[in-house]
Amino acid sequence: MASLQRKKGFQELKSVSEALELVMRVCGSKNLGSERVPSKESCGRVLENDVVSKIDVPPYDRAAVDGFAVRSCETFSASPSNPAFFKLKGTIEAGSHVGEIGEGECYEVYTGAPIPKGADAVVMLEDCEVEGGLVKVKRAAPKFANISLKGEDIRAGEVVIRRGELLRPWHIGVLASIGEGSVMVRRKPRVAVFSTGEELTEVDGARAASGKTIDSTRPMVVGALREIGCEVLDRGIVPDDFDRISAELIELSKRADLIVTIGGTSMGGKDLLPEILKTKFSLIFHGLAVKPGKPTGFGVVEGVPVMMLPGYPVSALVGFESLAVPVLYAWTGRKPPKREKVRAFMTRSVASTPGVRHFLRVTLVRREGRLFADPIAITGSGLLSSITKADGLVIIKEDLEGLEEGSEVEVELLRGDSN
Amino acid sequence: MASLQRKKGFQELKSVSEALELVMRVCGSKNLGSERVPSKESCGRVLENDVVSKIDVPPYDRAAVDGFAVRSCETFSASPSNPAFFKLKGTIEAGSHVGEIGEGECYEVYTGAPIPKGADAVVMLEDCEVEGGLVKVKRAAPKFANISLKGEDIRAGEVVIRRGELLRPWHIGVLASIGEGSVMVRRKPRVAVFSTGEELTEVDGARAASGKTIDSTRPMVVGALREIGCEVLDRGIVPDDFDRISAELIELSKRADLIVTIGGTSMGGKDLLPEILKTKFSLIFHGLAVKPGKPTGFGVVEGVPVMMLPGYPVSALVGFESLAVPVLYAWTGRKPPKREKVRAFMTRSVASTPGVRHFLRVTLVRREGRLFADPIAITGSGLLSSITKADGLVIIKEDLEGLEEGSEVEVELLRGDSN
Repeated sequence: MASLQRKKGFQELKSVSEALELVMRVCGSKNLGSERVPSKESCGRVLENDVVSKIDVPPYDRAAVDGFAVRSCETFSASPSNPAFFKLKGTIEAGSHVGEIGEGECYEVYTGAPIPKGADAVVMLEDCEVEGGLVKVKRAAPKFANISLKGEDIRAGEVVIRRGELLRPWHIGVLASIGEGSVMVRRKPRVAVFSTGEELTEVDGARAASGKTIDSTRPMVVGALREIGCEVLDRGIVPDDFDRISAELIELSKRADLIVTIGGTSMGGKDLLPEILKTKFSLIFHGLAVKPGKPTGFGVVEGVPVMMLPGYPVSALVGFESLAVPVLYAWTGRKPPKREKVRAFMTRSVASTPGVRHFLRVTLVRREGRLFADPIAITGSGLLSSITKADGLVIIKEDLEGLEEGSEVEVELLRGDSN
Repeated sequence: MASLQRKKGFQELKSVSEALELVMRVCGSKNLGSERVPSKESCGRVLENDVVSKIDVPPYDRAAVDGFAVRSCETFSASPSNPAFFKLKGTIEAGSHVGEIGEGECYEVYTGAPIPKGADAVVMLEDCEVEGGLVKVKRAAPKFANISLKGEDIRAGEVVIRRGELLRPWHIGVLASIGEGSVMVRRKPRVAVFSTGEELTEVDGARAASGKTIDSTRPMVVGALREIGCEVLDRGIVPDDFDRISAELIELSKRADLIVTIGGTSMGGKDLLPEILKTKFSLIFHGLAVKPGKPTGFGVVEGVPVMMLPGYPVSALVGFESLAVPVLYAWTGRKPPKREKVRAFMTRSVASTPGVRHFLRVTLVRREGRLFADPIAITGSGLLSSITKADGLVIIKEDLEGLEEGSEVEVELLRGDSN
């Protein structure tokens, strides 16, 4: 289309799938390695090695209920009308001594207590009555009834959690039960982030009145990285200077798994990032066939991938979701969360450029029982309010020339998980 | 059913829906209140007050692209074959001075730069050529072309994020762009947790050889609470003593929004929790119609709700998911995440007790293109390995008497979000 050809420097826009393939070729094989963390703090992390139990769980035969430990063969004919009688030798609590019974004898046992020698079943409390020193058992107990046998839950030598598993609360429980106080998990991705632009100021710095623009894209990207579970090295605003940006990139390549730059990716005189990558390092592509988000680029500095995001927040978000999110989830060993989707009808037609993936922000309106997607009118480029006002996203694929009024579309919900 | 009536103390089991209604009657109206957090750290929190912008964004008319600021009326007939010529007065960068143009004049402007007085459009760089001190404009620019107008994104006084919204990365961006360094969000629930049981030992304490059982349920529950975003007060193991447990409950009622106790809820001699609640405080119910998880209870100590979970890990998990999870998400203002579901066919019949909700752990097997749910054989009560080995859960509803071999069921996936 004319508008693309006109834009100098973007002779060739990469489609999202081509771009992602190039990005994954660089990033996909990277192994972040592992780190040891306390088991208690491992929830949400991905296991790096199989966990093999060193012990049996339970470590000994123990009572699964409160009741009386007996020889099962002595209860075979027991019933309420024909109870079996046992001499009560005493009480065994969990964590106390192990007793022993002979013929006609029983021990009272609490849940978790070691089964006395000679016993092979526990009769539940409610099936017994105690009269003086005698216990009246009114129900037959089969062999091993109400006993948790040694190694029944987990056997020593058994793999209890496999490498690659996302650890959830019950895994924390299992790790505790086999006495593993720490565990090897995949290391978190370390991502360095900086913005470029003389016009920018920090949110808590001098205000916009001075003619500066508050850097809102960087806090957003940092938030998105933390949501994914990255360790973020936030390097602030780096001046629009070829040498200073180059030095920063080299420095960060020693400390990060991925460098994300924000701004300085268009074709203006101060848009240095692609130029620096091209002349000093390796520029893999510059220009992504998405709208907004076109000035997204990708390169490599000293072996470390560099994701170049546009300065406009929505453009940056589209570049980030299209390329950085798949890489980071691949590295962490997790799947990206899926947005909930609904189907709706377009309230009006929207044009799109063939070959370019469009990210349309829409509000949802229910009218006469039907759900409608109403595109938010965008006057400027990549205004952030278009996302905070939106209920969802409609993605117009590359093979379309737009969407007709009344056509049915899929809407990815942006506020699915709040009440 | 016979097995329920036999169990002393559980004369009346509450169904999950009855129990949840009782729990929500106590917990539902509680207001956790709010706290102020730095905007940068507010991702994942729920906004407590509407955020109103104090400023216009952009704060002044500014260039949306790199190009030349002109009077739009002077470009009306411009085309490649009939360009309009402008005298170049200089360059305005973002964050620099505001210039002024007269008839036939232009300024070079960078993205974000303030529009000079007199100008009302920016012609993109690629539609211009510079020759000496003259700029050749080859394309007509309508009024306000490529200008982000003052207040176009956000107007001063406008509500930019509404109370109750779950804050996501783009909200962090918006908060930055309006200069809000901090924000009021709903306070995190404070949950105190302790286990009871003489038989228990900490994972890093004396080992099972001593006849003690490692307390694996508490680390699991603590992990689950942290996943939900609670502040956890982990109080360890409290001895099986009426007065010490009572004192602990009173102490924690001063410090927590919810108290979760683990163990001591069955009918044994050492199972003190329901007894303490009943005699000293308020026991609302004891006994939940779920399997596993029956000895779950609920009460109130000094106005603070107390969730009593069984000591067995899977039982505790079922009680926790059935009753604590809905309360905690209601308090945080978020919706509980939904597990992914698949449909599968039962490999064998499973009996269930009518009136009781059963949580069946299954593995999934694909055979001849069909997906089968294979129930895990449970020999003991509530073994944790039955969850770590499971691919999913089949919930057998209260109105069923079991599931037939070959019947189609819905399986909630337990490892949906790992690769």
